[in-house]
Amino acid sequence: MDSSLPRVVIEDVRPAVDAGRYPIKRVLGTAVHVSAAIFKDGHDLIAARLLVKSPDKSAAASWDAIPLQYRFDPDRWYATFTAQTLGRWQYTIEAWPDAYGSWQSDLRKRVAAGQDVATELIEGAALLERAARRARGAAKRQLVAAAAVLGGASDTPIQERIERALDASLLPLIDFPLEEAARTRAEVFELIVDREAAAFSAWYEMFPRSQTDDPARHGTFADASERLPDLAELGFDVVYLPPIHPIGRTHRKGPNNSRSSRPGDVGSPWAIGADEGGHTAVHPDLGSVTDFEAFVKRANELGMEVALDFALQCSPDHPWVAEHPEWFFRRPDGSIHYAENPPKKYEDIYPLNFWCEDRVSLWEACRDVLLFWIDCGVKIFRVDNPHTKPFAFWEWCLADVQARHPDTVFLAEAFTRPNRMKALAKLGFNQSYTYFTWKNSKWELRELMTDLLAGEMAEYYRPNFFANTPDILHEYLQSGGRSAFRIRLLLAATLSPIYGIYSGFELCESTAVHEGSEEYQDSEKYQIRVRDWHAPGNIRDDIRLLNQLRRKHLALRQLINLEVLHVANENVFCFRKWADGEELLCIVNLDPHRPQETMVSVPVEKLGLPAETPYVVEDLLSGDRYTWQGRDNYVRLDPAARVAHLLRLPAATRAVA
Amino acid sequence: MDSSLPRVVIEDVRPAVDAGRYPIKRVLGTAVHVSAAIFKDGHDLIAARLLVKSPDKSAAASWDAIPLQYRFDPDRWYATFTAQTLGRWQYTIEAWPDAYGSWQSDLRKRVAAGQDVATELIEGAALLERAARRARGAAKRQLVAAAAVLGGASDTPIQERIERALDASLLPLIDFPLEEAARTRAEVFELIVDREAAAFSAWYEMFPRSQTDDPARHGTFADASERLPDLAELGFDVVYLPPIHPIGRTHRKGPNNSRSSRPGDVGSPWAIGADEGGHTAVHPDLGSVTDFEAFVKRANELGMEVALDFALQCSPDHPWVAEHPEWFFRRPDGSIHYAENPPKKYEDIYPLNFWCEDRVSLWEACRDVLLFWIDCGVKIFRVDNPHTKPFAFWEWCLADVQARHPDTVFLAEAFTRPNRMKALAKLGFNQSYTYFTWKNSKWELRELMTDLLAGEMAEYYRPNFFANTPDILHEYLQSGGRSAFRIRLLLAATLSPIYGIYSGFELCESTAVHEGSEEYQDSEKYQIRVRDWHAPGNIRDDIRLLNQLRRKHLALRQLINLEVLHVANENVFCFRKWADGEELLCIVNLDPHRPQETMVSVPVEKLGLPAETPYVVEDLLSGDRYTWQGRDNYVRLDPAARVAHLLRLPAATRAVA
Repeated sequence: MDSSLPRVVIEDVRPAVDAGRYPIKRVLGTAVHVSAAIFKDGHDLIAARLLVKSPDKSAAASWDAIPLQYRFDPDRWYATFTAQTLGRWQYTIEAWPDAYGSWQSDLRKRVAAGQDVATELIEGAALLERAARRARGAAKRQLVAAAAVLGGASDTPIQERIERALDASLLPLIDFPLEEAARTRAEVFELIVDREAAAFSAWYEMFPRSQTDDPARHGTFADASERLPDLAELGFDVVYLPPIHPIGRTHRKGPNNSRSSRPGDVGSPWAIGADEGGHTAVHPDLGSVTDFEAFVKRANELGMEVALDFALQCSPDHPWVAEHPEWFFRRPDGSIHYAENPPKKYEDIYPLNFWCEDRVSLWEACRDVLLFWIDCGVKIFRVDNPHTKPFAFWEWCLADVQARHPDTVFLAEAFTRPNRMKALAKLGFNQSYTYFTWKNSKWELRELMTDLLAGEMAEYYRPNFFANTPDILHEYLQSGGRSAFRIRLLLAATLSPIYGIYSGFELCESTAVHEGSEEYQDSEKYQIRVRDWHAPGNIRDDIRLLNQLRRKHLALRQLINLEVLHVANENVFCFRKWADGEELLCIVNLDPHRPQETMVSVPVEKLGLPAETPYVVEDLLSGDRYTWQGRDNYVRLDPAARVAHLLRLPAATRAVA
Repeated sequence: MDSSLPRVVIEDVRPAVDAGRYPIKRVLGTAVHVSAAIFKDGHDLIAARLLVKSPDKSAAASWDAIPLQYRFDPDRWYATFTAQTLGRWQYTIEAWPDAYGSWQSDLRKRVAAGQDVATELIEGAALLERAARRARGAAKRQLVAAAAVLGGASDTPIQERIERALDASLLPLIDFPLEEAARTRAEVFELIVDREAAAFSAWYEMFPRSQTDDPARHGTFADASERLPDLAELGFDVVYLPPIHPIGRTHRKGPNNSRSSRPGDVGSPWAIGADEGGHTAVHPDLGSVTDFEAFVKRANELGMEVALDFALQCSPDHPWVAEHPEWFFRRPDGSIHYAENPPKKYEDIYPLNFWCEDRVSLWEACRDVLLFWIDCGVKIFRVDNPHTKPFAFWEWCLADVQARHPDTVFLAEAFTRPNRMKALAKLGFNQSYTYFTWKNSKWELRELMTDLLAGEMAEYYRPNFFANTPDILHEYLQSGGRSAFRIRLLLAATLSPIYGIYSGFELCESTAVHEGSEEYQDSEKYQIRVRDWHAPGNIRDDIRLLNQLRRKHLALRQLINLEVLHVANENVFCFRKWADGEELLCIVNLDPHRPQETMVSVPVEKLGLPAETPYVVEDLLSGDRYTWQGRDNYVRLDPAARVAHLLRLPAATRAVA
């Protein structure tokens, strides 16, 4: 029999991820609603409080306490705190039998029933004396004084003793159990508080070397800076650059991923490291670190941030290969292993051996790369293939960096099995790629959104819906024409608060390297691409409008306020989003080739809309207004003209259930 | 950076209750299917095994290891063990990177692609040498020998070296990681293995003092023994007796719970303890402990068990009051607190103070009461109001008793908030009362079964569906006549593998003490009741038949193999149960007063039944056979004749999806 046997049981604390093994995530300034099942045997009352420690407090600092309130249905306790500091918070719950509160409650019933309570008052005095022994300062003195009154000192009249006993101001003086062993403390849970950019932003991916008007002239950070005003005008929040470091020459890849390169071929930016330096150097053709800092500064002035790629791999020419051969996998002859997925060989890439003997130095060197670029003004990192590096490394590295810089944001680029994608989000990545790019049919989109919003996943997984990437040009885009790009852009920008496109999407670039491939022809990964950003057929107006609407309407800035609605036509996808009293209804024709029509069932009862009389809906995309009536309304979408309605429904005309 | 950083992640181990905080439960001889999400970074293979320790092993004993198998969809690992020993099992999972297996797999691909693998063989030899250093005995010698071959000893031809390298028999020799730090071990989970009686049994509750033909003559254990053959013939498994101990005289309750008793009034058996003894004594009017043991022996001979009531409270005359006043709550004047729920007073009962200074002695004394009756042959205890004693006490007490006597079974009689009822089941009670008695409408029954079968609850909560108790005569029975009793009996006996009735149910006793009360008139709790067990209108035939069917049909012996089916009529409840290739369909008229008809939708596709051609169903209750066709079939149930169909559907005529 252990003396720590709990008097009060605390179970099922929520929110939590894997019963507290991993942190939940919230955005700065949001309310965190905590609840738990808390109970004990018998009829005694319970005192319970939420304990919160903000990131700016030391481990030894005391907790902030917030009383928990009980709700009979559903038999749980609730409290709320506001996440007003960036970083890792801790929270837990403690509870104990409320001895004096229980006694007070019983006394009230006895008095109401007209019972003689002389003996009970002596018992109450004894409880207050016990409390006084554990209290300090003014509280101690007040408890001692009250105990004397209850006990009948100076022949206090019984009525006065009862009134003092029932005094509500006594309870707050006893914010502890009468004996320490009666206190139950739940395990400690963690909360990562990010700035809003981690959960809401529009990304634009571009290769700075392509920001040129001549494929023979390597674009520079100065060139790239000139594109920034346009991107800001289109409403993007984040400009993401593939690796900007020197590119290896050994086994450099040629255009269209050919295994040999010719002089002048620029190579893949992901083959990081050359004589000029490694992960903390800038490709000399782009400019200097100072030039990069100027680029970042310019973006910031325009209200945008720059995201860098963090790809932990080395070209054979990376300085680490010579300086730290022990950080790589070695063959029996002492040479270094290139990357392989047998029988495929990737001779231009050396993977790092994260479990090598000199692991501590390697992990710290990787962490220091991040600190270097943070010093240059970068706060957002898109992490390349994190699932090919140890989960334990990321859990350590992200926590270490964010303890120093809680305003940093890490996006996990992992296209792998769901358990591994979820694990990266759980251990600390602030946002994650998804399979959105491949989800083009209605049932796929419904399943994707159901997964993201159901259960614990919404507590830790923030999806970033990229509509394309340098690696993924989906067949839907290859064959769907301009309408397909408009549809996918609209879905990405409205289904998820974080979305992105990669250069060329706005121009509806749709040519794959060969049929059946998702790789772009003449992929920018291996060569410089020059574009006319105002070429005919572009969808810049769509982008600008959607980014404006996303900033204006809170409903589009949050993830979980989404419900997929049933419509009969399998080519039409319909969902509602809501926030702040505003209700949006998005109806999308998923068929880029043909008009589609369907009846849309508006949940009028739930939304407090009239079931009998007409109401007006406004299309935020076109400005058109329609008069609808009741639940079922007809919609027809011709992709040649418009691919979707994004309707603002009128405010509820009666109380919503 | 902690050196215990995991290489392999093990998550979401199932089955588990509250992430392993509480044990799961299974019946002896059943298979336990364990699964988990197990993954690591990169492409390497993983070695994973389930570790199991049976209750007969010491804490220091080694684990039994069972390899886990991976299934791509749903991306989890699986293994099964059989619970072939009563008591508390432990299980966990461990995993590590399968270095040699990964290397073998890569080598196979390289060889298939015709690559030169001379260097790889050297690497493979090095891996085998590392493994050999950690292996023992014959395995060590075999690994050393294989390493020599791979390494090219004695100019072994390359083809022979490759064959040896790919030899499948090498892998089982390496049942450990190449370095100990690479081993990940999940937390340890617990499993309580009970005998089948804990999960399947028909209970009969009777007051032994009422087994008499004259209310003035106190029934004895000898009298009660004479009833046993009849109960065995009716098919009951457990005969449960309310407390059999001496009954207090101070403040003894009179008939119908009156606050004063007259000489000759027998009092409530739950007011335990008098001059004649306490919890380990037998009421002298029932006989002696030896008489009780004879009663138990007789029940056992008839294939039944005796369950005793375990009610941890004392009458003011209980020997503990004088011997251990420190185990009770004391008032300021030194007197002992009677039970109260202010303003109500229960002066015939003294509650125990489970957190008193002398707690260890008290808890052990309570435990010793159980051990005493176990010595007398009792293996089943119905625990009275466990939720008014500390949860920590039960968790300790049940584990302590069951470590000595793993064949004991504890039924929690807690009618309280759901969290507390669930908590008692989680911490070790083998079965639990439910709110079944109050669930009489279709939606209530559906909700009850959904709760019991959904999620983790089925892992730890075994419902015992009592159709009535000495405290609960539901209004449905008071007003529904004989059909109501038949309906509730059928529901109890078919919905749950554990069910029970309390004496008088078979006679359809339905008179409450007053309108609006669920208490019986002239309740047996306070007086002796004499009955004619063959009185007209009894439902003995129903009981006998249902108990026979329950023993014969495995589907009725398990809980979770149940699906509630939709039927349009709100007065008809329909569910299917299945096991062992047999499919039962139960259709119950919940209206005891009027015939009800409905269409029943048979899930023919799921059950592999013909959708077009006729098939024959057999009513196990009546023996009637009906020709049904396709999905929708008509049913009419007139409660005057029959209250339900319990149909056996034909075996699937084609493969079931």
